[in-house]
Amino acid sequence: MADLAPTRSAAGTAPAQSFAAGSPRVIVAGATGFAGALAAHLLWRHPRFQLVAVTGRSEVGRRLDDLYPRYRVPLDIGELELDSYGELDAAVVAYPHAAAAPTVGALRARGARVVDLSADFRLAKLATYEQWYGAHPRADLLADAVYGLTELHRDRIASAAIVANPGCYPTASLLGLAPLARAGLIADVVIDAKQGISGAGRAFDETTHLSMAGENILPYKVAEHRHTPEIEEQLAPLRAAAGAEDELAVLFQAHLVPLDQGELADCFVTTTRRVHDAELAELFLAAYADEPFVEVVGTPPGTRDVQETNFCSGKVIVLSAIDNLWKGTSSQAVQNLNVMFGLPETEGLT
Amino acid sequence: MADLAPTRSAAGTAPAQSFAAGSPRVIVAGATGFAGALAAHLLWRHPRFQLVAVTGRSEVGRRLDDLYPRYRVPLDIGELELDSYGELDAAVVAYPHAAAAPTVGALRARGARVVDLSADFRLAKLATYEQWYGAHPRADLLADAVYGLTELHRDRIASAAIVANPGCYPTASLLGLAPLARAGLIADVVIDAKQGISGAGRAFDETTHLSMAGENILPYKVAEHRHTPEIEEQLAPLRAAAGAEDELAVLFQAHLVPLDQGELADCFVTTTRRVHDAELAELFLAAYADEPFVEVVGTPPGTRDVQETNFCSGKVIVLSAIDNLWKGTSSQAVQNLNVMFGLPETEGLT
Amino acid sequence: MADLAPTRSAAGTAPAQSFAAGSPRVIVAGATGFAGALAAHLLWRHPRFQLVAVTGRSEVGRRLDDLYPRYRVPLDIGELELDSYGELDAAVVAYPHAAAAPTVGALRARGARVVDLSADFRLAKLATYEQWYGAHPRADLLADAVYGLTELHRDRIASAAIVANPGCYPTASLLGLAPLARAGLIADVVIDAKQGISGAGRAFDETTHLSMAGENILPYKVAEHRHTPEIEEQLAPLRAAAGAEDELAVLFQAHLVPLDQGELADCFVTTTRRVHDAELAELFLAAYADEPFVEVVGTPPGTRDVQETNFCSGKVIVLSAIDNLWKGTSSQAVQNLNVMFGLPETEGLT
Amino acid sequence: MADLAPTRSAAGTAPAQSFAAGSPRVIVAGATGFAGALAAHLLWRHPRFQLVAVTGRSEVGRRLDDLYPRYRVPLDIGELELDSYGELDAAVVAYPHAAAAPTVGALRARGARVVDLSADFRLAKLATYEQWYGAHPRADLLADAVYGLTELHRDRIASAAIVANPGCYPTASLLGLAPLARAGLIADVVIDAKQGISGAGRAFDETTHLSMAGENILPYKVAEHRHTPEIEEQLAPLRAAAGAEDELAVLFQAHLVPLDQGELADCFVTTTRRVHDAELAELFLAAYADEPFVEVVGTPPGTRDVQETNFCSGKVIVLSAIDNLWKGTSSQAVQNLNVMFGLPETEGLT
Repeated sequence: MADLAPTRSAAGTAPAQSFAAGSPRVIVAGATGFAGALAAHLLWRHPRFQLVAVTGRSEVGRRLDDLYPRYRVPLDIGELELDSYGELDAAVVAYPHAAAAPTVGALRARGARVVDLSADFRLAKLATYEQWYGAHPRADLLADAVYGLTELHRDRIASAAIVANPGCYPTASLLGLAPLARAGLIADVVIDAKQGISGAGRAFDETTHLSMAGENILPYKVAEHRHTPEIEEQLAPLRAAAGAEDELAVLFQAHLVPLDQGELADCFVTTTRRVHDAELAELFLAAYADEPFVEVVGTPPGTRDVQETNFCSGKVIVLSAIDNLWKGTSSQAVQNLNVMFGLPETEGLT
Repeated sequence: MADLAPTRSAAGTAPAQSFAAGSPRVIVAGATGFAGALAAHLLWRHPRFQLVAVTGRSEVGRRLDDLYPRYRVPLDIGELELDSYGELDAAVVAYPHAAAAPTVGALRARGARVVDLSADFRLAKLATYEQWYGAHPRADLLADAVYGLTELHRDRIASAAIVANPGCYPTASLLGLAPLARAGLIADVVIDAKQGISGAGRAFDETTHLSMAGENILPYKVAEHRHTPEIEEQLAPLRAAAGAEDELAVLFQAHLVPLDQGELADCFVTTTRRVHDAELAELFLAAYADEPFVEVVGTPPGTRDVQETNFCSGKVIVLSAIDNLWKGTSSQAVQNLNVMFGLPETEGLT
Repeated sequence: MADLAPTRSAAGTAPAQSFAAGSPRVIVAGATGFAGALAAHLLWRHPRFQLVAVTGRSEVGRRLDDLYPRYRVPLDIGELELDSYGELDAAVVAYPHAAAAPTVGALRARGARVVDLSADFRLAKLATYEQWYGAHPRADLLADAVYGLTELHRDRIASAAIVANPGCYPTASLLGLAPLARAGLIADVVIDAKQGISGAGRAFDETTHLSMAGENILPYKVAEHRHTPEIEEQLAPLRAAAGAEDELAVLFQAHLVPLDQGELADCFVTTTRRVHDAELAELFLAAYADEPFVEVVGTPPGTRDVQETNFCSGKVIVLSAIDNLWKGTSSQAVQNLNVMFGLPETEGLT
Repeated sequence: MADLAPTRSAAGTAPAQSFAAGSPRVIVAGATGFAGALAAHLLWRHPRFQLVAVTGRSEVGRRLDDLYPRYRVPLDIGELELDSYGELDAAVVAYPHAAAAPTVGALRARGARVVDLSADFRLAKLATYEQWYGAHPRADLLADAVYGLTELHRDRIASAAIVANPGCYPTASLLGLAPLARAGLIADVVIDAKQGISGAGRAFDETTHLSMAGENILPYKVAEHRHTPEIEEQLAPLRAAAGAEDELAVLFQAHLVPLDQGELADCFVTTTRRVHDAELAELFLAAYADEPFVEVVGTPPGTRDVQETNFCSGKVIVLSAIDNLWKGTSSQAVQNLNVMFGLPETEGLT
């Protein structure tokens, strides 16, 4: 039973990418993992970026559409050789934390703007990074980085040299919590987040084997998930601007559930005062009315459902659902690239 | 594509049940649903109960092992006809709430002891029942009922006329929270519970269709799940005995995830004081050391994991996992029957 | 556990469809089922068709994006009222067999061209239809219908009044077998086909409930699937043109496996003579080199794999994989509409 | 996302195994894989065998119930040290092919009887083994081995020194085909087999990752699966005894489908003559009437279903379903051990 080894190779020649003349030249470094591969797919079919190369630290020489047939990117996976790409306008780096920062630095040295999918530039405070991840390989670059939750930092992303793409859990959680934080309503918060197995990445182990991950609900990194400080750091200025004087310690718990892509964050908020449904609805609709990638859904106002749902003795439940690989990772990277290069934010994503 | 209609019928004759002479005579009323069918399966293979009949309000005339091949109970599904079973010692009733109570009453009138899987006798306070379920069909019987969480009420279950089998969510939640409640440690609690699709029962609708339930994480009954008052009512006396003077409002949220059987309740507890890991470990081990169906698991003491897991600035996360159909429903019913008839509590269940 | 009833309603106003001026006006009749809903989705986002209305025999008044959020078609589901749509150029009819034909007739009476997803017009021979389905409601229209496997009948589809969209199994099977049939190579064939649960449609029953369909491999309609005569009728002229004098009786077996969308047909062919790999590869590559929606994949020539794969003592295994809802049903309907209205065949589908 | 690393360790002390005095002493060599772990589980709870040790080539020092919590075998995984077990009556060897034979030899040298789960002793003809697997490490032992399909070779298994447990696919296929072979009815056969991901074993790779195996139907080892010669070799004497003079070349194709445990083999048989349903039903019922682990199921005689199902112009479809890990592997090993030690064949298995 050991040698299951189906092979696949596309017949015929590869279709060419079609992009507008003068399009920014981009590479994806680390395209063999789930996040990098999806970023490559989105950039390949994007009408305004030119995908120059995809690289990997394994699978070199294999074609990306052999590794990920459904993404249909007919490029060979190469080693990262910065001298060989000509002038680069931008790069998406999909490396593990600590491995990413030196490559981001090398890309910056050649003038390329970078969207980094790792955690290396997500935390503005070096001390917090060191506490959760250890020594930082390129702390000197921290000041050049902007946290890449598009809806929160669109303006600064537009001119950023480095965009630190958020973790998938912080993406879902912060979109759910930001309107409450800005309104000074968060006294305390518990986040119970669940995502599909793709969130564990292309890891081949007990957490991803179908016979183990199937029929399972797996809590992991109990009360110590590295996404916690990211959420806290982003909420802090919003709360402070609304007058909060305390520091908020987020209690965050992550789970893997047996599906591929999908993520739900249940945010249980103890509010600083009692809030009426109408006020909550208004807050969220105002916050996201013009956002192309955020939908506010709920039952119609006035029903018993919405009363009980959003309002419960000084507590609010915000349910935030995303695709962990798309908005949670790779499509947000492209959304950020659109912002960085002055393109319509939805280009290539709808 | 509409007429997929495979059929199955066992060839050969059915094996007989084997049980000890003088075994109590039992029926399962409502054996066509998931919970009743599993109860019938467990009783059929039980060495000390005699399964006299299985009934259903649909599928009458079909054999139960045709409806549930893997349970292998070769009895015909009949209508409930209390005159036809001879003397009955006990019954498991697996009807929806409100429909159960009249049948429980009829069974009591003939002297049979009842384990009721519905919600009809779970809440001791009539007012609470009426608030969540409407008028009670047989409120006169409430005083005869004991809440059937075996580990909490074993003594009273032994002599009970009616045992109200707990909901699956309260089973998981209360086993996780009871040691903390008894120790006076619960100031506040948020429960985020997830279970497989079998928890939706044999309902054929959008929540159970594989093409809809698959790749989905579905929160339902937001902040108004009927299991909430059940948890609150059971925790109240435990907290009161430990000196709590306030009422605890539990915030409970349920989800369906794409697996068959399995349930996890994350209980996020704000404690009344800071608690050390060692104290927590001692509490849980002391509470459950002798329980055959409760395992206390955790990482070895002294590691960073356990520190961060159980202890977090005055907050505790208790993770409680059960099979929603087994301990959550049907095997707990048999555990209770064992207690009621003086049998070893694990008989027929291991 | 009966009242799981989450609701969803999009906030804000619906985006408008964007299509070119002068675009053909189309409706989807029967848009509440899986196939019709996907056809509506594809037509809504299509740049060259104007989706005028979506109808259903249930769910009237509900919005289609409430029923299928991910398809994002913001139209109300209405009853079919042919007087109310103004001039119609075309319609996709997604009704069950026998129910479809009268509606197809009514649409034809108003001059609309029809792609019918039912079986009503797939079989050219009335006697064969009657043998498998019973009386035909509109046999008078059979002569106006073309079998809608685009790759086989592109020319006739272009001018057809009625296009009978193939079943998903025949689509996969015929694409795999046609090159062999044309070459006179098929002496006998066994087809073992498997598809995901979406193939059972929006039926809420034992075949689709996740707790029953999960962990199951379900053969159904053993040796009597209605797709069999469709495959036989299409292969017959291809074989005859190559000189075959016998009639081919296809042995076809269908299965449901626990996934959502996806279909694999294993076609085990006994060949009329021994065939070499190189000849087989040439046959398939020649047949499909220019087809935008058919990929021929295999291991590189010369390896042991390809020898053993395609060539086995006068037997050939052809593995044909499609998405049962896309190429198997709805996207092929749009592919056919593109052909019918002189548009690029891939428009709106890539 | 790389460091998902939940841990589990059972609190409290391990329950002891309960077995009858004088029970045969058994080890499971290779208990860390799926098949060995399940064999250990079945032997641990078996009332008549004494499970002395479980060994592994990895995970040494870990407890088996930490690796497989639900199997609840509280033994430490050790290295295989034949000197340390005292007298051994039997062993289950769950190693890969070629690795198994030397260990089987060492166990035989100490007098232990062996059930070998590998392919090393399944093929009686050395030449066939060499053609499919390469050089045989212990060809000298081939004569001591009996093919362990209990229903076919029960008598010889009872006194065998080495029992070669069949592959899961041959188990399902041969049980389905043997009655037809014995009756001289098989002219030709195509087998299309599907099994769950557990069939790929504890391999952590692209075939088992939920995000890749999910939503997939994966044919593998096209037309060259090593189970083919095993099926052919077993059918040969049955066909010969019924007068067949030709050799039968089985065309076998395997697939992985996204479930855990479960296997279905569709056997498409071209018969040597036309056969009536009644004859077929009689054949199968006669063959398996007394078999405790084989059920013959079908629709009631006289319906249209059974006519079309089993009888189709000289062709028969036999559908054979098993659990690939239970009857397909580990429980059949225990069934064989029961036979070898004169115990009731169903002991510990129902």
